[in-house]
Amino acid sequence: MSATDQRPIIQPALPTLSLPAPARIGEPAASIDTPSLVLDLDAFERNLDRMQQVADKAGVALRPHAKAHKCPDVSRAQVARGAVGVCCQKVSEALPFVRAGITDIHISNQVAGPAKAAMLAELARHARLSVCVDDAAQIDTLAAATQAAGTRLDVLVELDVGQHRCGVPDADGVLRLVERLGRRDTLTFRGLQAYHGGIQHVRQFASRREAAAHAAECAGAAVARLAAAGVACDIVTGGGTGSVAFDLASGVYTEIQPGSYVFMDADYGSLDGDGAVRGEGSGLGFEHSLLIATTVMSRAVAEQAVLDAGLKSMAVDSGLPWIWQDGARSTRLAYVAANDEHGLVQPLGGAVDALPPLGARVMLVPGHCDPTLNLYDELVGIRAGVVECLWPVSARGHSR
Amino acid sequence: MSATDQRPIIQPALPTLSLPAPARIGEPAASIDTPSLVLDLDAFERNLDRMQQVADKAGVALRPHAKAHKCPDVSRAQVARGAVGVCCQKVSEALPFVRAGITDIHISNQVAGPAKAAMLAELARHARLSVCVDDAAQIDTLAAATQAAGTRLDVLVELDVGQHRCGVPDADGVLRLVERLGRRDTLTFRGLQAYHGGIQHVRQFASRREAAAHAAECAGAAVARLAAAGVACDIVTGGGTGSVAFDLASGVYTEIQPGSYVFMDADYGSLDGDGAVRGEGSGLGFEHSLLIATTVMSRAVAEQAVLDAGLKSMAVDSGLPWIWQDGARSTRLAYVAANDEHGLVQPLGGAVDALPPLGARVMLVPGHCDPTLNLYDELVGIRAGVVECLWPVSARGHSR
Repeated sequence: MSATDQRPIIQPALPTLSLPAPARIGEPAASIDTPSLVLDLDAFERNLDRMQQVADKAGVALRPHAKAHKCPDVSRAQVARGAVGVCCQKVSEALPFVRAGITDIHISNQVAGPAKAAMLAELARHARLSVCVDDAAQIDTLAAATQAAGTRLDVLVELDVGQHRCGVPDADGVLRLVERLGRRDTLTFRGLQAYHGGIQHVRQFASRREAAAHAAECAGAAVARLAAAGVACDIVTGGGTGSVAFDLASGVYTEIQPGSYVFMDADYGSLDGDGAVRGEGSGLGFEHSLLIATTVMSRAVAEQAVLDAGLKSMAVDSGLPWIWQDGARSTRLAYVAANDEHGLVQPLGGAVDALPPLGARVMLVPGHCDPTLNLYDELVGIRAGVVECLWPVSARGHSR
Repeated sequence: MSATDQRPIIQPALPTLSLPAPARIGEPAASIDTPSLVLDLDAFERNLDRMQQVADKAGVALRPHAKAHKCPDVSRAQVARGAVGVCCQKVSEALPFVRAGITDIHISNQVAGPAKAAMLAELARHARLSVCVDDAAQIDTLAAATQAAGTRLDVLVELDVGQHRCGVPDADGVLRLVERLGRRDTLTFRGLQAYHGGIQHVRQFASRREAAAHAAECAGAAVARLAAAGVACDIVTGGGTGSVAFDLASGVYTEIQPGSYVFMDADYGSLDGDGAVRGEGSGLGFEHSLLIATTVMSRAVAEQAVLDAGLKSMAVDSGLPWIWQDGARSTRLAYVAANDEHGLVQPLGGAVDALPPLGARVMLVPGHCDPTLNLYDELVGIRAGVVECLWPVSARGHSR
């Protein structure tokens, strides 16, 4: 034995001790490991085109929300089609988008505390950043952070247009904050955020239209009050996938910030379109592009199939997923219960022969896309039955 | 200018473009960034000691479930106290535990398909591994994978003891699978898994005891039938945090697999103890050790505080979180709604002055620990108000 043989050997980590990627590019979609998040790229691209077209037609800027997908590759595809930038909901969420070269980001939320304000001020070296406020103390914290960093921020005052979550109640509240912003060299008042999240999920078309009209009316009244006081709003931002058709027509919004339209989850797919047509979603014809690939892992209990995807593979806060077969919601099978790692499937109307066998692949449309994306590290893009890309969900878990 | 000066310079990534750690060791707990998952190490260690003591006293092996925490540091602390190994629910979930040196792992679930079976067979090079089956086809797949890898696996047949999710219905079903296992050199039948997840969350003590007794009775009857047929069950595994007091006393289980007792979420904290004492949980005196640190980010809407933690920072499938003040559930404040990134807090009984101010820190006990851990990359351990450790949640997202 030579001296060389006696040197300690560093063993390379065995490949099986790292989690393999869920799919390989160029392989059939049927080979994707489960549970995995799958993106139908054709439907996805049609959704992106459609939203850009309706925004362009209305002469309103499109700033899609990244909280829905947390994936810089999605944002790049949106910006390439004409989006003016993106929204993020948290400062930490913006990090991967700045890193990916997105140069215009709106934090559509209040920022809590000096540490987050410092991170935001630091990010402003690399991109144009705006942020919401609804309290004078937030302005003081942002001012201190930007002064310390030697950077600047655009600021939108959030107006409560009916959600009663965040936002000042009226134009007087806005004016007080505008006055305070005027004394801060590193902060620039740009306008209003007027977003009502609850509206987005109102099932009936007429009720949704009425709620969106009320929100736009509140925002329009505040803009007029501000103008009368000599304060111009360059930006009025708001709107989501459920209300965007109304928001674009309102004449009030200069910018819309929808997110879920890229995927269309089951909840959005349950909205009535115009004329009470069930399942038309926003009425704008977006398609379900986001699927969860699962496998039947047990058929031991009669009249039931058990999938390998439960609470840890999908958000169920807005309802259970749909079973997706041949491009439509299954009329013969239903996902009836989500346990932590199991999903129970039962036949509808006694169609026991419709139950998939052990080992079969079952595709789901998740109930709520935003928190579902937040469970996965990759999005597997497929086209014509073949894996085309693996996109990192880089902002997954960036909730600080 | 020298030639050296003209070489292209690779800029190091700016620190602010990476997500900073949520806390620094040695700093006060009040400095932890929010939302973050916080572990009270004293309460955690008392929970671990208590479960090991009751298992030892009953002469039953403790194999805690890692699906609750997904954190190898937690498993190491359990094994150091006498746990015989751990349970994992998915093959991919086991990877970080094998890597961390846990040498005895039971996959308490069926495994779907040849790729996962191959990974399991590969892991069996590094640790003793067992897995559940409830179908002959699963046995054939596991046999093929272990033969190809040149490894072996222990196998438990899952018996349906009332949950009606997975598992063969009776001893005849077990015997058919035992017979098939007997023809496979690389697979060894070791006994039964008899777990009823639904029992764990039954609120009333007497109903929970009755349901647990029924599950133990089913398992005991099957063991007797198998013994009469000359088949010995070395292992009967099952039980969870809600039923463990009954399981240990049953005389049927050789091994228990509780997981949530390390944390005690709000759902488990809502179980009646003996004598219908509300909030005694399993009646075994486990403490709430797991908290979510949050910050008030808006106070603009009257009679409401908005926290920076919503659906993406906690699972709400088993109920909304509790607000935790001075070591107890708040009687003056309630977390009333979880939006994606916002949590709404309102006063109970009109105690508006109890609402925390903008920027205040609010601690929560999450409704369901397992899927909550699956949202975070780190667990921040604190003791006596100081950050003591940052434990990676290494199996987060390992749901395949």
